[in-house]
Amino acid sequence: MVEQEFLKRLTVKTDSKIVMVVMDGLGGCQNDSGKTELETANHPNLDALAKKSICGLTDPISGGITPGSGPAHLSLFGYDPLKYEIGRGLLDTLGVDFEFTADDMAARGNYCTIDNKDVIIDRRAGRISTERNIELCTKLNGLEIDGTKIFAIPVKEHRFSVIFRGKNLVDKVLDSDPQKEGLKLMDAVPSDQAASSTARIVNKFISKAKDILRDEHPANMILLRGFSKMVNLPKFQDVYKLTPACIAVYPMYKGLARLCGMEVIKSIDTLETEFSALRENFSKYDFFYLHVKPTDSSGEDGDFARKVKVIEQVDKLMPLLTELNPDVIIVTGDHSTPAVISGHSWHPVPILIYSAKCRFDRVERFNEIDCINGGLGKIPARDVMPIALSNAGKLLKFGA
Amino acid sequence: MVEQEFLKRLTVKTDSKIVMVVMDGLGGCQNDSGKTELETANHPNLDALAKKSICGLTDPISGGITPGSGPAHLSLFGYDPLKYEIGRGLLDTLGVDFEFTADDMAARGNYCTIDNKDVIIDRRAGRISTERNIELCTKLNGLEIDGTKIFAIPVKEHRFSVIFRGKNLVDKVLDSDPQKEGLKLMDAVPSDQAASSTARIVNKFISKAKDILRDEHPANMILLRGFSKMVNLPKFQDVYKLTPACIAVYPMYKGLARLCGMEVIKSIDTLETEFSALRENFSKYDFFYLHVKPTDSSGEDGDFARKVKVIEQVDKLMPLLTELNPDVIIVTGDHSTPAVISGHSWHPVPILIYSAKCRFDRVERFNEIDCINGGLGKIPARDVMPIALSNAGKLLKFGA
Repeated sequence: MVEQEFLKRLTVKTDSKIVMVVMDGLGGCQNDSGKTELETANHPNLDALAKKSICGLTDPISGGITPGSGPAHLSLFGYDPLKYEIGRGLLDTLGVDFEFTADDMAARGNYCTIDNKDVIIDRRAGRISTERNIELCTKLNGLEIDGTKIFAIPVKEHRFSVIFRGKNLVDKVLDSDPQKEGLKLMDAVPSDQAASSTARIVNKFISKAKDILRDEHPANMILLRGFSKMVNLPKFQDVYKLTPACIAVYPMYKGLARLCGMEVIKSIDTLETEFSALRENFSKYDFFYLHVKPTDSSGEDGDFARKVKVIEQVDKLMPLLTELNPDVIIVTGDHSTPAVISGHSWHPVPILIYSAKCRFDRVERFNEIDCINGGLGKIPARDVMPIALSNAGKLLKFGA
Repeated sequence: MVEQEFLKRLTVKTDSKIVMVVMDGLGGCQNDSGKTELETANHPNLDALAKKSICGLTDPISGGITPGSGPAHLSLFGYDPLKYEIGRGLLDTLGVDFEFTADDMAARGNYCTIDNKDVIIDRRAGRISTERNIELCTKLNGLEIDGTKIFAIPVKEHRFSVIFRGKNLVDKVLDSDPQKEGLKLMDAVPSDQAASSTARIVNKFISKAKDILRDEHPANMILLRGFSKMVNLPKFQDVYKLTPACIAVYPMYKGLARLCGMEVIKSIDTLETEFSALRENFSKYDFFYLHVKPTDSSGEDGDFARKVKVIEQVDKLMPLLTELNPDVIIVTGDHSTPAVISGHSWHPVPILIYSAKCRFDRVERFNEIDCINGGLGKIPARDVMPIALSNAGKLLKFGA
């Protein structure tokens, strides 16, 4: 595993194209049938691709570590996820269409209902409509407290994002959200001395919001959590000399991709539109990150059969990708989400890397168990980008 | 491989139980028959367990490095053996029943015979009886030199341990034992400027011992070697949130386990009592380290057939363990001790990790060669603890 600073010395711009398909939570586990989701699914196109690819497994972070999607994606994109920790507030906010600056601190917000004794009656304010959310955010947006400007950005239903923009903000601030109904409102408390003035600003904002929302029942208050400062990631353009694009449905993944320097392709809302977008934009970029969410959602729901179906659905769409003849194709997951576990897990993730010069192995079926004997072996996910770049002829020789 | 400081953020206490069986020096090499010790042995119970486990190989330290039992065990327990170097004196002394403090420096001692010209005639003083050793240690125990208190603890026959307890002791002191008969007594020489006052204290002790033992022929002198300061390891309780127990026959392994925070189960003297102790204490702890010594001793003796027999003997006892239904079972070695090498070696060590959610592979026989195709691949031994903890549901997700 090399550092990006080292890689950067070796990367060159070329015309070759890389497509990375990330099926979220792809890795699975055997159910009572003795087979994993990938072993159960019928995926002739992925198998055909595996036959001419080099296959293996990745450890997203390190042996035994179960990652969230944030750090798992960072690894796949070649970043050290222990060096760049992205807080939940930032991760969620990244997906909204907002021009972040290095001075920004984000938090996740809920509109909620409180009674006249400041007790939280409904943490979601009866799941107000997104339209109502937009109206309320207009009232909070643009406030300024002690030189810190505040942006309130609607997300969906009762959920919104808050961005604090000011000098010297420190994100060591605990949630103002007690996460439970029947409890009283909480102040945002600094978890570190250095964050005391930041916490003061946050609390002044919360208190102003209370005044502003007083008569807006049921959304008469806000709860904030996951305070996190902006993270400045090295950009794909700079480190890898790539012109990268992101094709994703879910906001968080778009936001993460933006942080890496990817351009986010608009109006993507289904698996089909994702693959169409790839075709339509194929000439414009040389790196495509195509994110498939429902492998993870079905795994999280413990729905083995649905996860199998999603895999089969993606398989059917694969010819739309392979017909484009990208120089390098990567198919993998960011982490495992076995249906039998109903959540993310530590299990290594199957991967195939196709190129005309990949030195294919003897793996004939794309699944966790066949991939054990693949030519890649088990690699840290952070090695995927350098291997892909080399297969694409985008990495120079190191030394003479 | 992640650091323990990182792991500590993710570990949680649960009711699940982990049993780690360490067959010392388990890894072997092919003899003239073309098979290794594990391939030769008949071990149906281990094979049955391997079938439902994830298998692989571990590198105790790093590719090509032959470890001693100390660093090899530290790796398996999740510690960085290059960060925590445990000197031989300490390692040997750890096994004696002694309450160490951070100020202690240990050394290994031999009673020996010298002539009237200070020439060593017998390095082992004719292997005096342990009873005699106990008597002599009483004479040396409790001395105080320049504020440093000295404890003399009998081990066996002519062997004893010395613990120096004082402020600012520095263990960069060379052996006073020339390791050869016919040579003169040596002073303990500091190998570093910082250890000069420590060496002075050691030499004053040696000289006092000479006076005290003058008339105790054949044990009329002592030789000291392996000076080593106390090492403060993070404890299993703190890092892993485990309540760990050690089941071992040999003192050194008990001592090492104690350093990691394990409680040492008493009165263990055979393989059978080890497995019985596991059963008797199963409800009291959530982590068990069960150490099997004779795989190593037979390997060290170059006795291929005996090593095969020891493996078969352990295999017969395995049902006593599996019937307890621990959530996670690990069977591995700390390092390889191939009989054809008659010593520790650098060869990776076979491992199986069983849990209901381990994502078993296609390995059907537990040996060095079949494990090559296991789902774990070849992993650093330091990854074993995180993988086991995740399989036991004791590791939280990293990031969102």
